[in-house]
Amino acid sequence: MPELRQNIATGEWVIIATERAKRPEDFKKKEEKKEIPFYKENCPFCPGNENLTPKQIFQIPEGNEWKIRVVPNKFAALVPDVDYQRFYHDTFRKATGFGYHYVIIETPKHNGFFPLLEIDEIENIVESYHKSFLEIASKPNIEFIIPFKNHGEGAGTSLEHPHSQIIGLPVFPEQVRGRMEEAIRFYDREGKCVFCHMIEMEKKANLRIVYENENFIGFIPFAAFSPFHFWLFPKKHQATFGELDDLQKKDLSMALKIVLGKIYKGLLDPDYNLVIRSGPIDAPRVKYFHWYISIIPRLGKAAGFELGSGMYINTGLPEESAKFLREVQFP
Amino acid sequence: MPELRQNIATGEWVIIATERAKRPEDFKKKEEKKEIPFYKENCPFCPGNENLTPKQIFQIPEGNEWKIRVVPNKFAALVPDVDYQRFYHDTFRKATGFGYHYVIIETPKHNGFFPLLEIDEIENIVESYHKSFLEIASKPNIEFIIPFKNHGEGAGTSLEHPHSQIIGLPVFPEQVRGRMEEAIRFYDREGKCVFCHMIEMEKKANLRIVYENENFIGFIPFAAFSPFHFWLFPKKHQATFGELDDLQKKDLSMALKIVLGKIYKGLLDPDYNLVIRSGPIDAPRVKYFHWYISIIPRLGKAAGFELGSGMYINTGLPEESAKFLREVQFP
Repeated sequence: MPELRQNIATGEWVIIATERAKRPEDFKKKEEKKEIPFYKENCPFCPGNENLTPKQIFQIPEGNEWKIRVVPNKFAALVPDVDYQRFYHDTFRKATGFGYHYVIIETPKHNGFFPLLEIDEIENIVESYHKSFLEIASKPNIEFIIPFKNHGEGAGTSLEHPHSQIIGLPVFPEQVRGRMEEAIRFYDREGKCVFCHMIEMEKKANLRIVYENENFIGFIPFAAFSPFHFWLFPKKHQATFGELDDLQKKDLSMALKIVLGKIYKGLLDPDYNLVIRSGPIDAPRVKYFHWYISIIPRLGKAAGFELGSGMYINTGLPEESAKFLREVQFP
Repeated sequence: MPELRQNIATGEWVIIATERAKRPEDFKKKEEKKEIPFYKENCPFCPGNENLTPKQIFQIPEGNEWKIRVVPNKFAALVPDVDYQRFYHDTFRKATGFGYHYVIIETPKHNGFFPLLEIDEIENIVESYHKSFLEIASKPNIEFIIPFKNHGEGAGTSLEHPHSQIIGLPVFPEQVRGRMEEAIRFYDREGKCVFCHMIEMEKKANLRIVYENENFIGFIPFAAFSPFHFWLFPKKHQATFGELDDLQKKDLSMALKIVLGKIYKGLLDPDYNLVIRSGPIDAPRVKYFHWYISIIPRLGKAAGFELGSGMYINTGLPEESAKFLREVQFP
């Protein structure tokens, strides 16, 4: 029998489609795995081709041999060298395409998949996310920042070399505003952060938790919208990603390595998106919102129903998916 | 220079990515077109295989030879034969998977693509959408109804035989609720339906209209979220699809034939989703919402940014896409 589940934090309902449900094993990637080389001569992100990217913002470490490079996106969705202005003509509302769009080249290794990197390399990636976030947050006219990663063609990337992106927007996304309002209403009614409460309840239920360390906890949400949709939270209440501290960075790096590693190994390197859902940069320390990382393996396809309702049909049972990932030994 | 545009009706911003923009011609489907037969022996929707579907709800015309069959989805996301009940345990909110999920088999012809059908065949499809909508709306415990169509694998369908679907939900989708609230705020502030006003402004601007007849008008919205994203409206104010009258049905059929035909011919049969965005069934005649049909050719891919913000990056310029479709001669 199918089931409807509602995410307490977002208010969104999802259909858990048992009639079409698959076993966790059925989600394993079926394509032949192609061999990816350590270095590719014409790759704009491989060492030696630094002149193929726009002038870099920073690198880690500074000096000659970079481990991480952060550069403006050559095909930027938004650009900083224009005045931010809105033009409203009745129903026609537009703004100049002001904003920031960086690429984070995660490793010099063309085949350096995230979970296969050493922990100190991953710590560098987390550091570069954080540094880019703070750098963009310090700019005038920025309303909202979204760090994200697209892995694989099915997740929307055409460039093979491991990289992440970060976009700084001069407008506030409507969908995010709706979620903030939902979180505020919960806070006003219940007197606590809905995410803190959700973490507490997931720990009690102990059915969907996949990984936990001192500072982070990750689980498949009760109302996950797609198979293996995953949420990773800092355990202490923190509204924005900018507030991440040094101890947390270490634990976040380990959490990402292990969670992405379990997905990589258990599901045979599926395409996925990863996104950091931070609170608004001008509202650090608010009690009602809690930043987190969402990982979305691209194992389903949004069709007319999803596009027309914003609701999803999930063919994976969250409890089964969580159990499956828990049992994958990684590294 | 990129541009941000805000949809006045939904409040959603979109990035019009001129730096990555493509010409309308560049969106043409590149795959080799495969020959699809008129009849396929093992297709559950081809005539003679009626026993492969669950017991039909109705057919058009009644009698021996059907032109349209409406049947329950064999792999239904929601099912009617269960009591509707919600179970709330703190953060864990669920409901039985009660609901309706029908398949509308649009034609006996396995290769009877929508725009290539005769106008009376399309009138039958529109009639079957409307009849299914009213049938589900008459059931107890139904909150919201979504008729939709997935065309092609990239749009989420695995069955080749032309068909649509309709889902009746016992819950109200959060995303739709947000849009209703936005429309109500506009109505309260401006004293008119935001969609009626948008239609009026689009007619004045005359830049993005693709097709118009006595009762329907279709255009690429100013803030279209993806290339060739298309909106088709009844010209007279009408809140729900259930209110569609007989004269409108004729004009809607013609509008769909021509618009889908222009997309089919101009973009070489791209995968697409079509969805009817109706107001809530328990609120016909409300002045603030206006039903419409959204057609989304699947020419882009939602990646981390889109999943993490609900915002889209559109690589097609709405004015250029509209001009391109206007100039496609169909039939």
